Amino acid sequence: MKKVTYASCHITGGFWANMQKLIRETSMHAVYNRFDETGRIGAFRCDWKEGMDNKPHYYWDSDVAKWMESVAYIIRKYPNQELEEAVETLIDQIEKNQGADGYFNIYFTVVMPEKRFSNRDWHELYCAGHLIEAAVAWYETTGRDRFLHMMCRYADYIEKVFIIDGSAGYVTPGHEEIELALVKLYDVTGEKRYIKMVQFFLDHRGYNEKNEGDSINIQAHKPVREQYTAEGHAVRAMYLACAMADVALRMGDKNLKFACEKMFENIINQRMYITGGIGSSAVGEAFTVDYDLPNITAYTETCAAIGLALFAQRMMLLDMNGVYGDVIEKVLYNGFLSGISLDGKAFFYENPLEIPPAEQKAPGVRYPITKRLEVFRCSCCPPNITRFVSSVGDFLYTVDEKGIYCHQFMESVYEGENFTLMMKTDYPHSGKVRFDYRGQPTTLFVRVPGWCDGFQGEIKNGYASFALQGDDRVDVEFPIKPVCMEASPALGVDCGRYAVMRGPVVYCLEECDNGKYVRDIALYESAGFTEIDEKDFYVPVLKTKGYRRANRAALYVPKDHYPYEEVDITLIPYHAFANRTEGEMLVWVQVK
Amino acid sequence: MKKVTYASCHITGGFWANMQKLIRETSMHAVYNRFDETGRIGAFRCDWKEGMDNKPHYYWDSDVAKWMESVAYIIRKYPNQELEEAVETLIDQIEKNQGADGYFNIYFTVVMPEKRFSNRDWHELYCAGHLIEAAVAWYETTGRDRFLHMMCRYADYIEKVFIIDGSAGYVTPGHEEIELALVKLYDVTGEKRYIKMVQFFLDHRGYNEKNEGDSINIQAHKPVREQYTAEGHAVRAMYLACAMADVALRMGDKNLKFACEKMFENIINQRMYITGGIGSSAVGEAFTVDYDLPNITAYTETCAAIGLALFAQRMMLLDMNGVYGDVIEKVLYNGFLSGISLDGKAFFYENPLEIPPAEQKAPGVRYPITKRLEVFRCSCCPPNITRFVSSVGDFLYTVDEKGIYCHQFMESVYEGENFTLMMKTDYPHSGKVRFDYRGQPTTLFVRVPGWCDGFQGEIKNGYASFALQGDDRVDVEFPIKPVCMEASPALGVDCGRYAVMRGPVVYCLEECDNGKYVRDIALYESAGFTEIDEKDFYVPVLKTKGYRRANRAALYVPKDHYPYEEVDITLIPYHAFANRTEGEMLVWVQVK
Repeated sequence: MKKVTYASCHITGGFWANMQKLIRETSMHAVYNRFDETGRIGAFRCDWKEGMDNKPHYYWDSDVAKWMESVAYIIRKYPNQELEEAVETLIDQIEKNQGADGYFNIYFTVVMPEKRFSNRDWHELYCAGHLIEAAVAWYETTGRDRFLHMMCRYADYIEKVFIIDGSAGYVTPGHEEIELALVKLYDVTGEKRYIKMVQFFLDHRGYNEKNEGDSINIQAHKPVREQYTAEGHAVRAMYLACAMADVALRMGDKNLKFACEKMFENIINQRMYITGGIGSSAVGEAFTVDYDLPNITAYTETCAAIGLALFAQRMMLLDMNGVYGDVIEKVLYNGFLSGISLDGKAFFYENPLEIPPAEQKAPGVRYPITKRLEVFRCSCCPPNITRFVSSVGDFLYTVDEKGIYCHQFMESVYEGENFTLMMKTDYPHSGKVRFDYRGQPTTLFVRVPGWCDGFQGEIKNGYASFALQGDDRVDVEFPIKPVCMEASPALGVDCGRYAVMRGPVVYCLEECDNGKYVRDIALYESAGFTEIDEKDFYVPVLKTKGYRRANRAALYVPKDHYPYEEVDITLIPYHAFANRTEGEMLVWVQVK
Repeated sequence: MKKVTYASCHITGGFWANMQKLIRETSMHAVYNRFDETGRIGAFRCDWKEGMDNKPHYYWDSDVAKWMESVAYIIRKYPNQELEEAVETLIDQIEKNQGADGYFNIYFTVVMPEKRFSNRDWHELYCAGHLIEAAVAWYETTGRDRFLHMMCRYADYIEKVFIIDGSAGYVTPGHEEIELALVKLYDVTGEKRYIKMVQFFLDHRGYNEKNEGDSINIQAHKPVREQYTAEGHAVRAMYLACAMADVALRMGDKNLKFACEKMFENIINQRMYITGGIGSSAVGEAFTVDYDLPNITAYTETCAAIGLALFAQRMMLLDMNGVYGDVIEKVLYNGFLSGISLDGKAFFYENPLEIPPAEQKAPGVRYPITKRLEVFRCSCCPPNITRFVSSVGDFLYTVDEKGIYCHQFMESVYEGENFTLMMKTDYPHSGKVRFDYRGQPTTLFVRVPGWCDGFQGEIKNGYASFALQGDDRVDVEFPIKPVCMEASPALGVDCGRYAVMRGPVVYCLEECDNGKYVRDIALYESAGFTEIDEKDFYVPVLKTKGYRRANRAALYVPKDHYPYEEVDITLIPYHAFANRTEGEMLVWVQVK
C-alpha cells in the first residue's frame, strides 16, 4: 500500500478548501506576526545575548520550522512571494549560523552552548526533527535542495554524536520527533543511514537509560516493541508511534507492527474522547489510565489530536481497515478542528468537552482556558495546525496493485501517474460523494464511515468497492442524520448523558444559544432535530425541543419530580465552540 | 424551645440500642487500646522527653478527651468500673500536670513549652475545648466536680491570657471548638464570663487578624455575622456554626441567627451530599464552591457529618422546622454512620460515594482509602463517633410551652419532669412509631420526614400534631418504600444517575454482590424492589432486576445500542459499604 500525498491530491472545494484558504490568507500571517513579536523569528539571527529581551526558548526552532513547512505545502498550488521569501530568509539565517559540524539550534547556540546534547528533556533533537521535516517539504515543493543539504549535514552530525561516537549525554530523545523526520529524510534521499538512525533511536528506547524526569512520560519505561498501551505525554507517544509504524512498514518489522496495533486499539477502545482528543491529563500533558476521560478538565492537546491522525494514517498503510480512516475523520472534524477559531487567528492548546459555569469552578482544580489565544508561551499547536490543514491532501487516498482507496471525502482532484480522479462532495454537510475517473480500468475502494448506518452495498474491512471501467463515474451516499451517542459505562463521567453527532461531526450546546446553566437542559429524544444552515458553519445547526429543570434550589428530589419548562435547544458543531462569547459548553447532555 | 438531652432520654431498643451496645462493648475498648498503643493515653503522664518514642502531637488531648466524654454518656445507664476508672486515672494525671495558672496541654507542656498560645493553627484551644466538654459531661453523669473545677480554672486562665491581658499570640483560634465548649460550661455553671468569652471569640473572628495559613479555611475571612456561606475546613465551620447558633439562642443575637440560617441553607441547597456528607475536598478538608460534589474523591469527613448534625440540632432550637430534623436523620443513617465498621472496630475518616475499579484510579489524583482503619495519625473521628452515638439521645426531643416535639425515631423512654413518654419503633426498618404517654394533657408534635410521601394528616413546618389527653397512645406511620432520587443537574457528576433511598437510608451497589464494574449496571425502574431481611443489616437488603452492558470494548455507540444481559442486582445500605471485602461501590446508578 502506498500513500498518496498532498503533492498529487489538490483540495478544490468544500469544507477543506475553505479551511485551507483561511489558513493561507489569515492564520499563516497571524502566526508569523505573533512569532515575530515574541522574538521567535528574529532568534534565527542567533545574535541574542544575556540581558536582551525575548530570550530564546529551547523549542523555538520547532515552532518556526512548522510554519516554514506549512509554507511549502501552501505555495505548491498557491504561489506567494511574501511567504516564500520569509522562508528563504530563515533558511539564509540557518545556513549562516549552522556550525561547521552541521549543528543548528538557536537555544544551544546563544543561551547554553556548553550544554549541547546533554539533556534528553531539552527538545534539541525535537527541534532538529522539525527543521528536517521543513527541509524535506521545501525540497519537494520548490525543487531547491539547499535547505535539504543543510539538514542532511545536521543529520550526519547527529549520527556521529549519538551513534558513531556515542558522545551525547543521552541515547534517545525525551521528545520524539527526530525519528519520523529521519524517515522522511530517508524517503526523499534514499540514504539508508537515515532509516538506520531511526532504528537506533527506537531500539535503544526503554533500555535502562539514565532518565532525567519521568520515564513513562517520555515512553522510556519499556522497549518500544513491548509498549502495548499509549502512555505518557500524548504528543510524544503519537510521534513515537508514527516512527514505529514507519519503520514497521519500510523494514517489515512485525514486532513493531504488533505493538503499533495494540497501542492503537488501546487508544480507541479505552483512551480517546468522542472528539478524537487524547491525553486527558494536564499533568505531563499525558495519557493516564483506561477510561479516565474527564470532560471539564480534558487536556486533549491539539497537537496530540494531530499526532493521532498522523499515526492512524501510517497504520492504514500497514493494515487496510476502515477504523483508521474513521479515527482520522473524527480528529479532523472535532478534536483537532476545535484548536483553531473560525476567524483563523486564535488557537486552543487544550480542547475540553465541557465548560462549567465560571462560579462553579472549584479551587485547586486546573481548568482549561475558555477563549482561544493568538500565541502561547509554548506555541507548538498553531503552526502544527497550519501545516496539518495545508497538507490535508495527504489523508485522502492510498493505492496498491488492486486499486485506489479513498479514505476521506473532500472535494479534490487527484492526479495519478496515468489517471485523474475527481471527487465532488459537500461532505460533511451531506453524505453524497461523486467520483469522476479518467484512466485505465481499476477498482475504487471507498471507506464507509463507521458512523454510517444504512449504507447500500457490501462492505469489507470498512470499504465498499466499485469497478472502474476506464472513464467512469461513481456516486456514493452515506445517509447523514443526527444521532445520540452513548458512552461506555466505564466512562463514569458520561454515564446517563449522550453526545449528539451528525455524521462525523460532534455537536455541543453553548450558553450563548441556550442560556445559563446548560447542564439543566435535557433533550427530548422524540422531538427530533431540525437542520438549519447558518452562515457561520459549513454544517447545519441543529434545533430541537427539550426541557430545562427550572429549580436549582433543591439538591435531591425523587426521580422526575423536578419542575421543568419546555425550551428550544440549539446545538452547534463542537469544533466551533467558544467562537462567539465565552461561556458554558456541553457535549454530553441528558436525553429524556 | 428547650433541648431534651441524653440524660433524660434513654435508648431502649432498635437500631440505636444496637449501635450503643456496639460502641459500649467494642468500639470504646478498641479506640482506647489503639490510643494506648500509639502513646496517646500515656502522654497524659506528661513525662515524654526528646528521644523517646511516641512523640505527642498537638491534637492528642482532644482525641482522648472525646473518649472520656463518651464514657460519661455510657456509664449513666450502663455502669462500667473499668471505663470509669480509666477516666478517673486520666483526670488524676491532668490534675497532677495542670499548671498553677490552670493551663493544661500535653504537647505544649512536654514538646514546646515556650510556644504556648503562640500559633492559632496549633489546636491548643481546640484541645482545651474538648477537655471542657468532657469535664461537663463527667460532672453531669457522676455529680463529681473535680474535673469540672479543673477546667473552670483552665477557662479562667484562657480568659486572662486572651481577653484580660491580651497576651496570646493570636486573638481567635484556628480550629474552633473552645466556643461551643464554653457554652456548655456556661450552661452548667451559670457563670456569665464563659458566654462572654464565646462572644469575644465570635466577635473578633475575621477582623484583620494576623493569620497564619489560609484565612478562609479557618473561617477568618469575614466577621461571623457576615458569613452566609459555609467555607473552609468543614469541621471547623460546623463547630463555629454551633457556637454562633448557641449564642444566638442564649443572647437573642438576631444577626448571628440570620447568618446561621443563611449558612445552613447554603449547605443543604448547594454543598451537601445525599448522604449528609459535607466538605467535598481533601485540600484543606474543606467546602469548595456550590455544586462541587464529586463522588469518587468526596472527602466528607466523618467529623464534619457529626458537626452538621450538631449545628442542625442547635438550629432546631432557634427555628422549629422539620428541615433540621431531616438533615440530622440523613447524617445519622448515612454520612456519619459509614464512618464506623459493622464490627465496631474500624473507622473511615473519609466517606466517598463511589469507589471505582482499582485499575481505573488515575495517577496524580488523591483517592480515599477503601478499607476502614483502627486508628489514624489524625484520629479525631473514632472518639467523635463513640461520643456521638453514646449521646444520640440528645437528638430525639425538644420541649416548649406548647408541648413535646419528637424529631428522631428511636425506641426509647423519655422521663420528663412530670411525665413519661415511651417510643416504640423499629425505624428505619419500618416507618411505624408508637408513642405511649403518661402525664398531664399536652400536645405531641411529630416530625414527618421530608422523604415521606403519603403521610395521612396535616403537616405544619414539617410536623404533625397530636393532642395528648393525659395518659394516651399515638400511632404514626410513615410509608417506607424504595425510591429513586435524582440530583440537581447542577451536580453534573450525578447527571443521568439516580440514588436509591428507602426512608432515610441511602443504598449502594457493591462489587461483592454485583460483580466487577458496577458502573456497567443500570436498574430497570419498572422491575421494582424486593426487600429481604439479612442478618448483617437492620434494614432490608434491596433486590431488583436490571441490566449490565456486556461490552466494554466500544467506547461510543448509538444510544441504547450496547449489548446487555439481564442481571439480578443487590443494594445494601450505603453506611455498610466496605464491610465485607474491598472493591467497587456506587451510590449514583443508572436507571432505565
